[in-house]
Amino acid sequence: MNNLPIGVFDSGVGGLTVAKEIMNELPNENIIYFGDTARVPYGDKSRETVTSYSRQIVEFLMGKEVKCIVVACNTASAYALETVRHEVDIPMIGVVKPGARTAASATRNGRIGVIGTEATVRSHLYNDYLKKLSPNVSVFGKACPLLCPLVEEGWIDDPVTEEILRRYLKELIEKDIDTLVLGCTHYPILKNAVAKVTGENIRLVNPALETARELKKLLEEKDLLSSGTAPVKHCFYVSDGADKFRDFANSILPCEIIETKDVNIKKF
Amino acid sequence: MNNLPIGVFDSGVGGLTVAKEIMNELPNENIIYFGDTARVPYGDKSRETVTSYSRQIVEFLMGKEVKCIVVACNTASAYALETVRHEVDIPMIGVVKPGARTAASATRNGRIGVIGTEATVRSHLYNDYLKKLSPNVSVFGKACPLLCPLVEEGWIDDPVTEEILRRYLKELIEKDIDTLVLGCTHYPILKNAVAKVTGENIRLVNPALETARELKKLLEEKDLLSSGTAPVKHCFYVSDGADKFRDFANSILPCEIIETKDVNIKKF
Repeated sequence: MNNLPIGVFDSGVGGLTVAKEIMNELPNENIIYFGDTARVPYGDKSRETVTSYSRQIVEFLMGKEVKCIVVACNTASAYALETVRHEVDIPMIGVVKPGARTAASATRNGRIGVIGTEATVRSHLYNDYLKKLSPNVSVFGKACPLLCPLVEEGWIDDPVTEEILRRYLKELIEKDIDTLVLGCTHYPILKNAVAKVTGENIRLVNPALETARELKKLLEEKDLLSSGTAPVKHCFYVSDGADKFRDFANSILPCEIIETKDVNIKKF
Repeated sequence: MNNLPIGVFDSGVGGLTVAKEIMNELPNENIIYFGDTARVPYGDKSRETVTSYSRQIVEFLMGKEVKCIVVACNTASAYALETVRHEVDIPMIGVVKPGARTAASATRNGRIGVIGTEATVRSHLYNDYLKKLSPNVSVFGKACPLLCPLVEEGWIDDPVTEEILRRYLKELIEKDIDTLVLGCTHYPILKNAVAKVTGENIRLVNPALETARELKKLLEEKDLLSSGTAPVKHCFYVSDGADKFRDFANSILPCEIIETKDVNIKKF
């Protein structure tokens, strides 16, 4: 059981920021990553659609005998995790709760901003969970639909990206937030550009990192850590466009991906 | 037969620019529009995926007894039209050929630019068809993945959009093009911003308008024009997010949409 891989899935390439943090925190673990690139983005889709897609991917990962599943997608964590986790007998964690917990303990003035896709912001899941943790916090959400394509264009350290961030973040800064959750898996790649706009007084929370830390704790608690005796091997699957996925993955992961396989996910 | 509706489909909201031009050119015709909002965008998907999605939508529209089908999506026109048109017994036209024909006759120096999604540009369909029409033209494609989200954000007449357009169009202007095809259905909404960057010496080709004109000719030739005796009624269907679709549609169409219906397109 311990040497089985960890399943990680996302609507596309964004969840690779979570895979990257898992590789850093848990260097002995094998990862099976699934990116649903044929149906990306999940951000505009309904709760029912996202839940049905997530269920198919979980079935695919279960077929690969994973020991746990990380939902490395804010939209799927928001819409699907609570339903689908009860349908399997292995642990499943999402990116929302670890990010929310860190934000709740980081804030000093109780004013927290959350940026993400339209669905993540509209779903209010960060808000709901933050309010459960600290009933007195005020949470301000802002949908930033241009940020994912900017990341995928590679316009990372770029004046256009900074100007767009300034616009998106203006109303949050005016709300006097002291903590900002990067509530979409693409956004950690823009962390430096965000920090330039928010300045030193706003603490940035990276749910990808917090999720990897929480996963480590979970595997320790359940005695599921890999024995570390075999060489590490990660596998990457996508529902469309394996070559394009591999190029992006190689630009952000600490290891080189040689092969990415195409999967007909609708069969699951 | 004549009073049956015209089927129009797109991966999402973009094809509404084509529906709008059809409403202007053919005010007596009824339109049944399908926007595949659950699976948008098609731009990043493979030829096989886009063909299979298009086939499902064509079956849905055939079930609504349309007299012809307009593929109001550049990616689907590029990847799926040639295959799917042979599977039905009603006329089908796409947006690529009308746009290409206009561009080929408009150019004076034989240097034509095409902007679009990654798939449209990578597919080389505009290039191939333009070369068939005029073997000596030079065609320069440029993928502009940020433009659709900018349109959907409503940042239409905006300095950020102009700066992004300046970057995207710089290399095409340097190639000394005299004609530019707006090769994605969202782009006609940015026509004024594009014109500011390209200036007076570059002729902009709007395939949405050219497609509506070609459709009019086709219906005249086949004696399929509506008799115009009944009040016009348009119907809108989407695979996800009917409310959001309706808001966007109402911001660009010359008529008010009261109702948009959700369809489970995967059943087709």
